[in-house]
Amino acid sequence: MADRISSPPRPESAPTRSWWGWGAPDQALSDAECAALAALVPGAAEAALPVPAVGSLELPAVRVGAPAALAHLLSSAPADRAAHTYGKAFRDVVRALYGEMAAAPDLVARPRDERDVVDLLDWAAGAEVAVVPYGAGSSVVGGVEYRAGNHRGVLSLDLSRLDRVLEVDRVSRAALIQAGALGPGLESQLRPHGLTLRHFPQSFAFSTLGGWLATRAGGHYATLHTHIDDLVESLRVVTPSGVSQSLRVPGSGAGPSPDRLFLGSEGTLGVITEAWMRLQDRPSHKASASVLFERFTAAVDAVRAIAQSGLHPANCRLLDPGEAALSGVASGGGGSVLVLGVESAHGPVDGRLAELVALARDHGGSPVERPSPSSSDRPASGDSAADTWRSAFLRMPYIRDGLARMSVISETFETACTWDRFPELYEAVHREVGAAVQKVTGAPRLINCRFTHVYPDGPAPYFTVIAAGRRGAEVAMWDEIKAAAMETLGEQGATVTHHHAVGRDHRPGYERQRPEPFALALRAAKQALDPAGILNPGVLFDAPTA
Amino acid sequence: MADRISSPPRPESAPTRSWWGWGAPDQALSDAECAALAALVPGAAEAALPVPAVGSLELPAVRVGAPAALAHLLSSAPADRAAHTYGKAFRDVVRALYGEMAAAPDLVARPRDERDVVDLLDWAAGAEVAVVPYGAGSSVVGGVEYRAGNHRGVLSLDLSRLDRVLEVDRVSRAALIQAGALGPGLESQLRPHGLTLRHFPQSFAFSTLGGWLATRAGGHYATLHTHIDDLVESLRVVTPSGVSQSLRVPGSGAGPSPDRLFLGSEGTLGVITEAWMRLQDRPSHKASASVLFERFTAAVDAVRAIAQSGLHPANCRLLDPGEAALSGVASGGGGSVLVLGVESAHGPVDGRLAELVALARDHGGSPVERPSPSSSDRPASGDSAADTWRSAFLRMPYIRDGLARMSVISETFETACTWDRFPELYEAVHREVGAAVQKVTGAPRLINCRFTHVYPDGPAPYFTVIAAGRRGAEVAMWDEIKAAAMETLGEQGATVTHHHAVGRDHRPGYERQRPEPFALALRAAKQALDPAGILNPGVLFDAPTA
Repeated sequence: MADRISSPPRPESAPTRSWWGWGAPDQALSDAECAALAALVPGAAEAALPVPAVGSLELPAVRVGAPAALAHLLSSAPADRAAHTYGKAFRDVVRALYGEMAAAPDLVARPRDERDVVDLLDWAAGAEVAVVPYGAGSSVVGGVEYRAGNHRGVLSLDLSRLDRVLEVDRVSRAALIQAGALGPGLESQLRPHGLTLRHFPQSFAFSTLGGWLATRAGGHYATLHTHIDDLVESLRVVTPSGVSQSLRVPGSGAGPSPDRLFLGSEGTLGVITEAWMRLQDRPSHKASASVLFERFTAAVDAVRAIAQSGLHPANCRLLDPGEAALSGVASGGGGSVLVLGVESAHGPVDGRLAELVALARDHGGSPVERPSPSSSDRPASGDSAADTWRSAFLRMPYIRDGLARMSVISETFETACTWDRFPELYEAVHREVGAAVQKVTGAPRLINCRFTHVYPDGPAPYFTVIAAGRRGAEVAMWDEIKAAAMETLGEQGATVTHHHAVGRDHRPGYERQRPEPFALALRAAKQALDPAGILNPGVLFDAPTA
Repeated sequence: MADRISSPPRPESAPTRSWWGWGAPDQALSDAECAALAALVPGAAEAALPVPAVGSLELPAVRVGAPAALAHLLSSAPADRAAHTYGKAFRDVVRALYGEMAAAPDLVARPRDERDVVDLLDWAAGAEVAVVPYGAGSSVVGGVEYRAGNHRGVLSLDLSRLDRVLEVDRVSRAALIQAGALGPGLESQLRPHGLTLRHFPQSFAFSTLGGWLATRAGGHYATLHTHIDDLVESLRVVTPSGVSQSLRVPGSGAGPSPDRLFLGSEGTLGVITEAWMRLQDRPSHKASASVLFERFTAAVDAVRAIAQSGLHPANCRLLDPGEAALSGVASGGGGSVLVLGVESAHGPVDGRLAELVALARDHGGSPVERPSPSSSDRPASGDSAADTWRSAFLRMPYIRDGLARMSVISETFETACTWDRFPELYEAVHREVGAAVQKVTGAPRLINCRFTHVYPDGPAPYFTVIAAGRRGAEVAMWDEIKAAAMETLGEQGATVTHHHAVGRDHRPGYERQRPEPFALALRAAKQALDPAGILNPGVLFDAPTA
């Protein structure tokens, strides 16, 4: 029944990407815009750091040669190596701006199919070359940056050519999609079938299905199917010990889930090349509303009631007073704003939205304006707070880059905890991380919070830190703040990451929370699948140093 | 905020259980009832197999002695050993009736706390004694039956004393529950808090939380949270290499999920002793309806539309014509019956039920009677088809035992597949398994099908086989039919089990579908956590024979 797409159309060509910062180069802020932005941050630098020309970068010498049989897949061009050196965390962007390129991979490979991936891994294992799987490089946790270890070379395995939707099963609402497909590319291939994956992380335009799967990315839905994990029917993974293909079924109780071992393995156990993904009908009915709360604690209680109501809003984003002010959605007054959204491909959603708004009202919320009309297959409109917030959301990474050029520390961290722990966590983050910001920068602290996803048993709070840094010390300053954040989350029993993965940056917090017997099991699994220790060394585990 | 229950009340005392068959001895069918039932199955035996007295059983000699320090936890009483020999599959019941007790464990241990579990595992590892974790013994796949291997003895680790709810977090709607708690016992401890786990497998009264977790049991909800996996916040697992305690959070993206490795590990990696479970408010509104379909294929299409509607019925059970007739819910005529149920702790559900019924009607269904009134906190009533089916459902295992005493093969197998494959799977099962039934029994085949759970991408069909067997050959006959069923499911790309686990009986089908690299990883994890190979040997993996 599934339609095998015999000659899958190439998706619209991927946009040119910035080698140093977020997204499309033509969207980056100008020097003047950077300066205007920084004027809002007391103590920011007066001039923007220049963006180095790729040609001017000092890259380390290439240590390994391309084997002849694979040469057509490999590049050692400086632009390729520079663009594959870092992810897109604040600390990555700053280091790129300073031209720190010691971590550049020796080679960048762009396999065309699974056979190429197998051949590249075979060669790398024999040559003791580390392999860093690379989707679109949007990691904010050092997930694609080789550090230390004693490999003879480093290969960045760029999956961007594996960008097709290969098969669509309309009746089961599922599709077989290659791991290197970017968000817009896979959506454009699904659109003719009336289907959508509806996984829209902030990085949507510049991240890939394979990256989402390897990092257990958080997506569009604020409730219910929050992580991409739940949208997976089966995975195909190339490991150095063979290709793993799980059975494509809607549910199974046959032993521990094979897919759940690879989901979140961050390229350490194998390279995800394809997945059968569960899709949605394109929603025909949407509605949204914003609710203002005078007291943040009342807003938290409202969100908890909503999360436990079984009404499953697609959007349920609570902005604390600072975040609301920063996003421009609160019309002054220091209140918190809750943005609610519901959607359906089957029928009107106004009733469900009304129930949600009623729950918010029961907890002291005031709807900002009338719920928007439903029955419109467009992004929720008619609700200006939601619209304002959405634009700010998508623009955020560019603004972050602009601030970075002004030596302003602008970074986020996210977590999840149970409802009983949230009030204390919220206080502790402001107190402890606030103290770290003040100690490091001497500047007034600005720590905002929003909920990106919520569960019946707790929220996923997302914190933003903005503070002027000292030129040349930006990374060290952020690292000190981040260490305090990880320490605080650990003390509060909250996870080190809700949807940004572990990478290399979260290792200390991850090791604190990972049960030691599970660490033993995972290391043993790694040894079985990657005996040469070439796959993304340093992520989840120590890099081999023998 | 969580209430630590300082002196947790003992739950109502557990009911006495049959050593040979299902459930409570006083619920078993009398000889006369057995004979009356068998009269409906052409070719059934004329007299019921007698139930042997436990005292008359020939048990193998006990091979290992109880160490003095642990003696107070151990029993080698024949009644204990006999009751811990088998699970509750048809083939288990028949072998018990024939007094085949060669697989009896040497000792039965009843630890009182985690320390006892650790001590027992330590002793067993040193003594080369196999440990078979045992909840309430409801496995239907040979999950609690030691077979082969070369251990010096076998210990059945009965967790029934670990039966308390230790802590309740009302605000996050979660509780810390010990693994040995039976369904009714844990629900009675949650009731004063207004909470419920709402995990109601058919085995509810005679199965435990730990068993559900270790086997990824399927529960109450026909859609959305079908398996117990989704209800887990964190797990505590005693492994021979240490105690694993995962972080209690509502969601996390920090590496592969530790819990998902232990869920479905069926006692091979460790012994689950406690879990923080996500709970529900007790539903205050319920409604149900039954819909009759002339054509089974139309009913399947209706169920698919419902599963893809986002309406998430709690019950969505489709009975094919044979199953409907067997359950007595179809008033003749050879139609299929769809039983729908919705529930909420927050508001009326009539609207949602009406939408579901409308979807069924769109596909040719006729509501059997008016949807029942909602707003009643009782099992769905007012819908006689649903009530009739529910009674039959709970009575089924006793009837199965009665049929077994009449040498009637009465057994089930379940699976899951994507919607595109279901029509062919349904045909293939009737053709291939039907042929096997006919070959083995010479009797007319009776294979019924119902959907127990449904997903947007496919159903979980549950097949029942009933056919007269030959006295003394019942197990061999069923094994041949079961082999054909596993072969057919494998050929059709369906899972060997949706919610009955792998155990020992499903090993051939499991090995066919488990990706080989995942098998490598899992074996390595097993070796790391259970280096002596004592934990439930023969389940998921080969038992050590070195």
